[in-house]
This record gives sequence, structure tokens and C-alpha cells, in this order.
Amino acid sequence: MDTIKSYVEANKNRFLEELFELLRIPSISTLPEHKVDMLKAAEYWKKTLIEAGSDRAVVMPTAGNPVVYAEKIINQALPTVLVYAHYDVMPVDPLEQWISDPFEPQIRDGKIWARGANDDKGQSFIHAKAFELMVKTNSLPCNVKFMIEGEEEVGSVSLGKWCADNKELLKSDIILISDTSMMGPDTPSITVGLRGLAYVEVEVAGPSNDLHSGLFGGAVANPAIILAKMIASLHDENNRITIPGFYDDVLEVSAEERAAMARAPFNLQGYKNSLDIDDVHGEVGFSTIERTGIRPSLDVNGMWSGYTGNGAKTVLPSKAFAKISMRLVPNQDYNKVALLFKDYFESLAPKSVKVKVNIHHGGQAYMAPITTPAYLAASLAIEDVYGKKPIPFRSGGSIPIVSTFEQILGVKSLLIGFGLESDAIHSPNENFSLHQFFNGIDTIARFYGYFGGHNV
Amino acid sequence: MDTIKSYVEANKNRFLEELFELLRIPSISTLPEHKVDMLKAAEYWKKTLIEAGSDRAVVMPTAGNPVVYAEKIINQALPTVLVYAHYDVMPVDPLEQWISDPFEPQIRDGKIWARGANDDKGQSFIHAKAFELMVKTNSLPCNVKFMIEGEEEVGSVSLGKWCADNKELLKSDIILISDTSMMGPDTPSITVGLRGLAYVEVEVAGPSNDLHSGLFGGAVANPAIILAKMIASLHDENNRITIPGFYDDVLEVSAEERAAMARAPFNLQGYKNSLDIDDVHGEVGFSTIERTGIRPSLDVNGMWSGYTGNGAKTVLPSKAFAKISMRLVPNQDYNKVALLFKDYFESLAPKSVKVKVNIHHGGQAYMAPITTPAYLAASLAIEDVYGKKPIPFRSGGSIPIVSTFEQILGVKSLLIGFGLESDAIHSPNENFSLHQFFNGIDTIARFYGYFGGHNV
Repeated sequence: MDTIKSYVEANKNRFLEELFELLRIPSISTLPEHKVDMLKAAEYWKKTLIEAGSDRAVVMPTAGNPVVYAEKIINQALPTVLVYAHYDVMPVDPLEQWISDPFEPQIRDGKIWARGANDDKGQSFIHAKAFELMVKTNSLPCNVKFMIEGEEEVGSVSLGKWCADNKELLKSDIILISDTSMMGPDTPSITVGLRGLAYVEVEVAGPSNDLHSGLFGGAVANPAIILAKMIASLHDENNRITIPGFYDDVLEVSAEERAAMARAPFNLQGYKNSLDIDDVHGEVGFSTIERTGIRPSLDVNGMWSGYTGNGAKTVLPSKAFAKISMRLVPNQDYNKVALLFKDYFESLAPKSVKVKVNIHHGGQAYMAPITTPAYLAASLAIEDVYGKKPIPFRSGGSIPIVSTFEQILGVKSLLIGFGLESDAIHSPNENFSLHQFFNGIDTIARFYGYFGGHNV
Repeated sequence: MDTIKSYVEANKNRFLEELFELLRIPSISTLPEHKVDMLKAAEYWKKTLIEAGSDRAVVMPTAGNPVVYAEKIINQALPTVLVYAHYDVMPVDPLEQWISDPFEPQIRDGKIWARGANDDKGQSFIHAKAFELMVKTNSLPCNVKFMIEGEEEVGSVSLGKWCADNKELLKSDIILISDTSMMGPDTPSITVGLRGLAYVEVEVAGPSNDLHSGLFGGAVANPAIILAKMIASLHDENNRITIPGFYDDVLEVSAEERAAMARAPFNLQGYKNSLDIDDVHGEVGFSTIERTGIRPSLDVNGMWSGYTGNGAKTVLPSKAFAKISMRLVPNQDYNKVALLFKDYFESLAPKSVKVKVNIHHGGQAYMAPITTPAYLAASLAIEDVYGKKPIPFRSGGSIPIVSTFEQILGVKSLLIGFGLESDAIHSPNENFSLHQFFNGIDTIARFYGYFGGHNV
């Protein structure tokens, strides 16, 4: 057994105990009553990173929850890795659906069960322990910095400014992030693309008050029906988005990359079974993986109008509402797309209603290069541990802070996730495979080795 | 001044005091905590009708709230009028929008303000007092019966069976109902048509759980979008309902009747101003009055899916729902229409979702003849009081019990309403014009005279 494997083997139980201590802190960023838990989690990270071998670890204030910064500078001439992670978690409701207490981690069926088991406490602890391993075995061949925030689940609202204020401190060659998934436990992958996001809320207003649907029905525009017609107009019969100019900036993906994507293992029947659907549904001419990976999409996230209680009420509603989000691909600008949406949506309204479009937050898409030293080091490390080269994979999700890092710090990110799609992040019974956790430590330790140049 | 006018003038204040006592009873039929108020209201009606001169008045049990029955039989050979009304009212929420307490009636601006001021305590009290007037002045030229129920606002659920059980008791020549509106205070009208109603609730189900809209968006059917597309398909570009067979049983209205409708006073700009809309919206080829009077319609009464709270949530919802009602015209059967809807709606669903259609309650449309002695008597009475012949008017609303009366009792109804569209029934600040209240008593008293044959 090599040094890495034997260190992990010898310290397995302690790693888990330490992770469990972090998981027990209910650091839910969106709920103000957990403010004190945010500080607890930050302090715990500081302690963890000092014990792991940092020269320096500090809890730094921001306009919101603090950022934990730590560093181990071996030699200014060596390359520097900046690890990004977050210590905040999502709320746990509906609590009654959890099999065990979300803040009292359990091991069952080879998995850790707790809120944050994967996202992002479990995944980020991989980095704490791989760093410790490299320091304690005197193998660290590069400089390492940590930046652990407490607001990722609420849109990283303070981190952009904090980065801008600390550019010098954060100087690095690559940002390392484990906050995504692998295609499967036997199908290692590296996320090379994230979609951007534009999010809007719309209101369609008809008569000034709810009306009696008998006395007025058929003569006055029904805002719910008008909204339905407007939403229906947003996709054509091929499920392409109809907003004029929407696809103008979409970069077509080369036949070569599409062929590579088609070779990636993907079981359509298994996908349908896991979602309990009889058929998939998307843009004609693209596969399921392509539809989320390389194509933009438009979804209704919420929609409401009129009477939604039990039984019948014969009302012609005064207003109807929807929340609509668009996932964007590289080269589409979320601000531009939001304005294109607004113009088009407003143009769809008949004179019998009034329409408002409010633009929420958004973020740019991100593409990671696959030819950098960091990507190559990650690829070699994964191949060592998993026995297979990783597949470069474009995720349908968005992590807006990643493109912000590039803008502010001028540094690319490497998205090396160890989660699985079945981990139920953001949902009841979040879990994380022990196998992935320990493989993750092994992989990240080896990444340092390759990235620092020792074994490339 | 004639006998009728002088009796009304002499008793005005007492009439109002007695009505106010009824209005103070919060007889909200849909709220179980008001059970005792239902009995109070029924007992108050019994007392009112005895004091007015009934030979007999009883509170009769049903499976739900009791029915007050009363009668004054002058002579079995004379024609008999059966007055139908209801003593229950709608809930009052949102209470904060009321200018004065809904159950402490006030007079302001020549109107009575209270829940039930019009619907139906105010309108039905017209009948109590017109009856009293005719008895006390020894002028009643026909037999009169009263049937006052306490479940009209919850669908008259017990009244059909109670009628079937008491057919002999309810023998009559005409059922007299004041539970509708006039076209305007200077435009007297008699309601000669009511629309039928079919009411359904639909569910569109996609993936078994809410999904992350980034990871799955564009590849999995979004039930909110599919529902929107299905709802959008229910009307064509001329706002005609697209359900196959929907119009098959619709009787086309003669050019003559349409020409008469077109002559009725109707101010389109005033209508738009009162609703704060820039344009009306309905079936091409028909006027606003025709769209609610002689044409069927389809409305979404409620619609909901996904996240409807504040802010943004990037969810691809598992399910989407809508409540949809159709108003029907004479000769359309509500059961048949509900099934046509179900078949068509289910056929609109792509394979990527599952659809359920649940059929709620419904009722048949109703047409009142305009050549009966009762209609002619009402027309003469209205002309005496208002100085104009009433316009026969088809309302867009539904009173399903009216067609039930015809089926069970074999008796037609005369819908002589004194409400106005501005009375805000079912809404905060319900009101009823004093002028209409006293004119109503005058009109109904004269109706008895004409109907009994004294002055025709």
C-alpha cells in the first residue's frame, strides 16, 4: 500500500468523527435564527485547517457571513491552488420525510446521511483531509489556500466584494472546487461546463378585482388563460425557445465534441425509471445529455392564479403570476437574455391585460479548459484511483460565483466533484457515499502530487 | 297616493329595522362554527312570515340546514305563487377591506351596507314585506307559499331531496325568485336565462419529485409548461372553445332576439372603466352582452405549480394543477360537457406527463318563458313602478337549483331581481340600494295584483 492509501486507512474513523462534528452544526444560511451556527461552522473550519497544517487560518468578516481563509505557503515560486468551498447548508423541511435527524449524522448502507453530507460539508472535508495528508506526510509540492464561504446557498451575496477586496491574498494558479457530481461511481467525470442563469417573475393583470366567472366569463380576459397562452408561446413545436435573438450568441458545439458526448455512458431507460416518467421531453435534434449540457433551456419554476384551495370557487381571477428561469450556455449574456425575454413577453400580451416582468438575479455560464496543467493533473489522479480516465462533462446546473472568480481574480476553476446524482442534495435524506468520500481524499492528494510536478 | 305606496311609506322604518335584525345574524353556511346562526336565521324568518300573515310557518329539517316553509292559502281554486329565497350568506374575508362591520348594517349614500344586504337577505325581505302589505290591506288575490333555504351559497345540497319529499306541499303555478340583478336602476330587466355550469379540476404530473431545474431543465417535461400549453389549446384564435363537440348542442339564438339584445342599453366604455381594463376579450362575432348571455364560456378559476413564495427557487415542479369551469347555455348537458372536456384534455397530454381530470359539481342552464301569466304580470308591475317595460335579459350566472325545481316540481321560475351589478355581492362592502329595496316591495305587491287577475 502506498503512503496515501495507508494514511487514509489509518485515519478513516477520525476523518469521519471530525466530519460528523461539522455536520452537527445546523448552519442554514437562509434562516436568520441560525446566525450563531454560521459562526460556529466558520470557527470549526478554522480549527480544522490549523490542525491540518495551515501556516495561518482566519475567520474574515464580510457584509454577511464570514469567510474562512487559510494558507500553507511552501515556496512563493511553486504553483498555488486555491480551494473554494462553503460551510452553509440548505433548510431541511419537510422534516418528517427524513429517516434520521438531518443534524445527527448516521452511517447506513455505506453512506453518510445528514444535511450537508454531500453539499458541501462532505465534499469540502475531502479537501481538508487531503491537505492534512499531504502536509503530515511532508508531500505537499505546491502552495495551498482555502476560501470557505457561508452564503453559497443564498447566492454568494457577499463573496464577490470580499474577493475584490482581497485580490492579492487570493493570488493563485487554479481554483479547486468539489461541489458538483460525477456521472456515476464507476464513471468518473470532471465538470467542464456550467450553465448560466436568467431568472424573471411575471405578472399578468386583468380586471381590478376578482370577478364572478358566471357574470363576466367569456366577456373579460382571464389572466390565467392569457398567462398560459403566453407561456405556451415561449417554445415552438420543436421545443425551441421562441424569444427573438435568444439563440444568437449560442456557440454551436463541434461535431467532434458531440460525438464524444454520445460515447459517454448514459442509460436512457434508467434515467426515465429514476424519474418515473414515460418519456423525456426537449429540443428536437439533441440528446438528453446535450439538452442539459450544451443547450439553453427555459423552465417555469412556479405559477399561480385565482383560487387554489379545496373545492370549487367560480372566480375569474384578477391576476396571474409565474416565475420563469432560463439556463444559458457559454457566450450568452444573462443580462441581455433577461431583456430579450422581457421585450418578447410583453409583446405577447393582448390589450385586454397589463403585463409586468421583474428581473431577478442571474449568472454567466462557465467553461473550464481541459488542457491546463490542473485538468491534466486531475485526470491522472482520477485514473489512478478509479482505473479510468474521467469524462469531461458539461453539467446543466449553474454556480454563478465561478464566472465571478474568473472576472475578479482572473483565475480558472477546476470542478472536480465526488457527489452522485442520487445524493438528494437540497432534499430530505441527503447522503454521501463513504466510498466516494475516501476515494475523493485519495484523488485530491494525488492531484497535489501531479499538479506540483512530482509525478507528472 | 295609492294603497301600496302609502303602506310602504308608513312602514319604511319598521321594514328596515326588521331587515337589519336579520342582517345582524352571521348566517355563513360554509363555516361550521355558524351552525347556531343558521337556526337563528331560520327562526327569525318563521317569526317574520307569521307576523306578515301566514296561516302557518314551520322550520323543517333537512340533511343540512333547515328550510323555512310558510303558506297563506286564500282559496285552493286561486293560482299559487311559491317564493324561493335563502337565508345563508357568504363569508366576509378579507374583513379589513370592509368600511363598516359586515354584520352591523349601516345606511350610507342611500344604500344598506352589510353582508347579505342584497344577497339574499335584502332581496328576499322584499317578498316578506310585499306579502305582509297584501295581507294587511286585504288585497292578496292568490295563494302564497315560501320556501327559504340555508344552503344556497354551498350548492343547495339538501334542497333537491327536500323538494322531492315535499312535492305535494310545494304545488304551485310559478316560483318567484329575487336573487339576480337588474341591468341598471333606470333599466329594469327580468332575468330569462341562466347559464349551466361544468366544473373540473386537472392535474398534470411529470417527474415523481421536484427536480433541480439546472440539472434537468430542457431534458424533462415541465408540468407547468405542459399545463400552460394544454390550457392555451382550449381556445382557438377566435376565442372559440376547441373541445370537439362542445358546441354541438348549443342552440343558435335567432337574429330577432340578437337584435333585441343589441338594443338594450349597454355602455361598453363604462363597463371597461368599471373593471379597469383597456379592452374586452371574448368570442369573435358576438357582443359583450351576447358573450355572457347566449354563449358558453370556459374559464380558469385557479392554477398552481411549483414554488410560489418570495424570491427565486430553481425547481422543475413535479406537478401542476388547475381548476377550470365552463358556463353552458340551454340544451347543453353539463355531464356530457364535463366528459367531452375530460376526453379532449387527456388527449392533449404528451407521453412525458400523466394527466388526471376530476369532475366537480355542475348544473343545467335555465330558460324562463316570457309569455306566461307570471312574466306578463311582472312586466306590468315593473312598468308601473319604473315607468318602463322590463328588458328580458339573459344572465351569465348560474343558479343550478332553478333547473332542479323544474325537474322535480315541474314548475317554472320567474327571476325578478332588484340587485345591481355594483352591489358587491360575495365581496367586501356588499350593499343594496334603498331605492331598489322599496321599489322592489312596490313591484312585488303589484305583481300579486296582476297575477291574481284583479288588475290585468
